[in-house]
Amino acid sequence: MTYRLYYSPGACSLAVHVVLEEIGTPYTLQEVSVARAETQQSAYLALNPKGRVPALAIPSETKLLTELPAILVYLARQRPEANLLPIASAVEEARAHEWLEWLSGWVHGVGYGGIWRPERFCAQDTSAHEAIRANGRRVVQEAYATIERTLGDGREWALPSGYTIVDPFLLVLYRWGNRIGLGMRVNYAAWTALAERTLERPAVQRVLAREGISIE
Amino acid sequence: MTYRLYYSPGACSLAVHVVLEEIGTPYTLQEVSVARAETQQSAYLALNPKGRVPALAIPSETKLLTELPAILVYLARQRPEANLLPIASAVEEARAHEWLEWLSGWVHGVGYGGIWRPERFCAQDTSAHEAIRANGRRVVQEAYATIERTLGDGREWALPSGYTIVDPFLLVLYRWGNRIGLGMRVNYAAWTALAERTLERPAVQRVLAREGISIE
Ligand SMILES: N[C@@H](CCC(=O)N[C@@H](CS)C(=O)NCC(=O)O)C(=O)O
Ligand SMILES: N[C@@H](CCC(=O)N[C@@H](CS)C(=O)NCC(=O)O)C(=O)O
Repeated sequence: MTYRLYYSPGACSLAVHVVLEEIGTPYTLQEVSVARAETQQSAYLALNPKGRVPALAIPSETKLLTELPAILVYLARQRPEANLLPIASAVEEARAHEWLEWLSGWVHGVGYGGIWRPERFCAQDTSAHEAIRANGRRVVQEAYATIERTLGDGREWALPSGYTIVDPFLLVLYRWGNRIGLGMRVNYAAWTALAERTLERPAVQRVLAREGISIE
Repeated sequence: MTYRLYYSPGACSLAVHVVLEEIGTPYTLQEVSVARAETQQSAYLALNPKGRVPALAIPSETKLLTELPAILVYLARQRPEANLLPIASAVEEARAHEWLEWLSGWVHGVGYGGIWRPERFCAQDTSAHEAIRANGRRVVQEAYATIERTLGDGREWALPSGYTIVDPFLLVLYRWGNRIGLGMRVNYAAWTALAERTLERPAVQRVLAREGISIE
């Protein structure tokens, strides 16, 4: 038996898909389309009551592993020699978790959640959804300014020590920036350079081809 | 030099405070009161632009370490023999991250964030704040039902393997449940048993006394 990734093309599950390729482990894919609302269908909810992707089936486990940072950390551990999580230094490892938590809980959760899923914050009152969308956009733009400033200090990757599980997540968010019209190439030079370095990786190229998506 | 914890009494920084006591490392405390809005004052924002607690000053680092899960993981690493993060098993460790991420990003971020900080989701339009508060309460109640069901399977701690950094975070959320009137003792028996086990720990008792708070 091998891992099985529940994913949707271009969703944040893309970061897990990249890391599966990076570590060179056998896995299968199961598409659960966000666009077609398959994440909210009873067949998937029976497997993952959270109704989100990514989720990872691990042979030894009866329950799926959920939450993007948890799955990324788990996979990095499967191949320590790939150095996808800098565990040799407790501080560097903590900085990886700091990035993942902020990107996941704030930039993705509150920023993009507000833009694409305003009902998560206000299920009853749809009249508030436009204001929540606008707020999500403001959160994303402020966060993107912070990310660009951070990456602009000369580092090659999110963590100065090298390519880690944070970088594929940043690639997902770079792509989403283009999706919401932020013109990433024009407005975020340091982040664009990081995205291009990431796109040079064969694992990343294979995954984009497999999901049928591009970054621009 | 020692660690310095930026905290507010009863805030989620309480979980970090507990773990500092558990690992028995020297540290100092710096109060940044959420109730008095000190997290948003320029003196603190200069140190931590995110304007949140907890934040940890680490002697070797110029920048504060932020994000609750990242700080908890970092401190657990400082004393591996305390087994506060089950790193011997990659799956168990991943389950710890899964708990932390969901509690932090969803239960705290979207649930309590909606109740106590509706402006994070809708800064401009205050007319939506009541609906966002009600939605936050619904998110918390659904999540609390899930937590109670999970803890009700006979386990002693959040992770069946033993007491970890997840449990002090659950204690914070248990206390908050009482703050918003959910009557934790009456309505959440399994979680109450876990909270009581947590309260038996001398480290926890010292921290509650030091912050001047109780759980009920
Ligand atoms: N906290 C979750 C968030 C995952 C999430 O929101 N995924 C989105 C796709 S990027 C999703 O599944 N949306 C489907 C839905 O809301 O029904 C994690 O870290 O995995
Ligand atoms: N994602 C952050 C959230 C921290 C957070 O929201 N802390 C609250 C206290 S529990 C806070 O500082 N609120 C102050 C404010 O919003 O000004 C983390 O994990 O540390």
